[in-house]
Amino acid sequence: MKLSARNVFDGKIVEIKKGVTTSHVLIDVKGLIFTASITNESVEEMGLKVGESAKAIIKSSEVIVAVE
Amino acid sequence: MKLSARNVFDGKIVEIKKGVTTSHVLIDVKGLIFTASITNESVEEMGLKVGESAKAIIKSSEVIVAVE
Amino acid sequence: MKLSARNVFDGKIVEIKKGVTTSHVLIDVKGLIFTASITNESVEEMGLKVGESAKAIIKSSEVIVAVE
Amino acid sequence: MKLSARNVFDGKIVEIKKGVTTSHVLIDVKGLIFTASITNESVEEMGLKVGESAKAIIKSSEVIVAVE
Amino acid sequence: MKLSARNVFDGKIVEIKKGVTTSHVLIDVKGLIFTASITNESVEEMGLKVGESAKAIIKSSEVIVAVE
Amino acid sequence: MKLSARNVFDGKIVEIKKGVTTSHVLIDVKGLIFTASITNESVEEMGLKVGESAKAIIKSSEVIVAVE
Repeated sequence: MKLSARNVFDGKIVEIKKGVTTSHVLIDVKGLIFTASITNESVEEMGLKVGESAKAIIKSSEVIVAVE
Repeated sequence: MKLSARNVFDGKIVEIKKGVTTSHVLIDVKGLIFTASITNESVEEMGLKVGESAKAIIKSSEVIVAVE
Repeated sequence: MKLSARNVFDGKIVEIKKGVTTSHVLIDVKGLIFTASITNESVEEMGLKVGESAKAIIKSSEVIVAVE
Repeated sequence: MKLSARNVFDGKIVEIKKGVTTSHVLIDVKGLIFTASITNESVEEMGLKVGESAKAIIKSSEVIVAVE
Repeated sequence: MKLSARNVFDGKIVEIKKGVTTSHVLIDVKGLIFTASITNESVEEMGLKVGESAKAIIKSSEVIVAVE
Repeated sequence: MKLSARNVFDGKIVEIKKGVTTSHVLIDVKGLIFTASITNESVEEMGLKVGESAKAIIKSSEVIVAVE
């Protein structure tokens, strides 16, 4: 599957924190830690597990630029 | 300034593509290329330039997780 | 590829409007017309064409609910 | 009220899952199930109920396109 | 119409900058200037005009908090 | 730090509601109440407290315009 999202990064899940409806999934991509806030249903249906390969995907319209 | 956004990555601007109202700014972070779609006004007011240090900032609610 | 995004809908591209940096892609899903604002680079690299099958993908955190 | 969001779809609420701060509201639009992640306050103040008519609203900048 | 978005602010349009596909609409709310990036189609279909009353609407999941 | 986000508003935190993974932070800006949905980790690491000064930051691509 090809996606229009410009930011697609391959990494590995390093932590999953489950809330009542929302989970936070941490993905390590070359030492950068991405935090994704997703539904618990997605965590369960995708069978996400720590240590597993995963992609972090972000639309370019969601990226803010900052300079000092 | 401290931000609530969980994903704040330090890099360098490698390309700026200007449209009529919207620009695409590419930031290299450890070899990962982030594309940010931002307003032309921001590019101008921030004085963004290729080669300059910049951060890519993303809220965790904007990150999608994918697995094969 | 499995995605954490809860809203993944199969349709067909019915129109592509190109701007200088940003394109609008219209996808017909069971008669519902989705408008996606994406980069021109994505349109080109994905080879998007009118009449082609495509998915519209949306995170649940991006959906607003309204009632009369 | 007219909205700039290009994706406004009329449906019916088929499920509400409440968390501690965040609820997931499922809306059936012509057989497509939209999941919206919204605050509990919104669910309460709007008086959302299963079976009720509701709209799912999404900005075009939030829609990702995918092709196989 | 009642919206789940928690941030709904009444103001007045003070500027509209049109691009090829995307416009920037500036709304003055009690002296705060909101910039909204929306499609040209929305500007035209809604008949947006400088001086007109308008609301700026933002989901709470899109708001970043910062402290010095 | 300068941000590409066009909507940066200075205010004061008036309420913090903590969930299991997600908190809602209310910021008063000139009498406008902004609600930000952010991770609990951000609330803790930033040491957010009611009464403290804080900014509400929003990308222009996240702002919807409405007219009656």
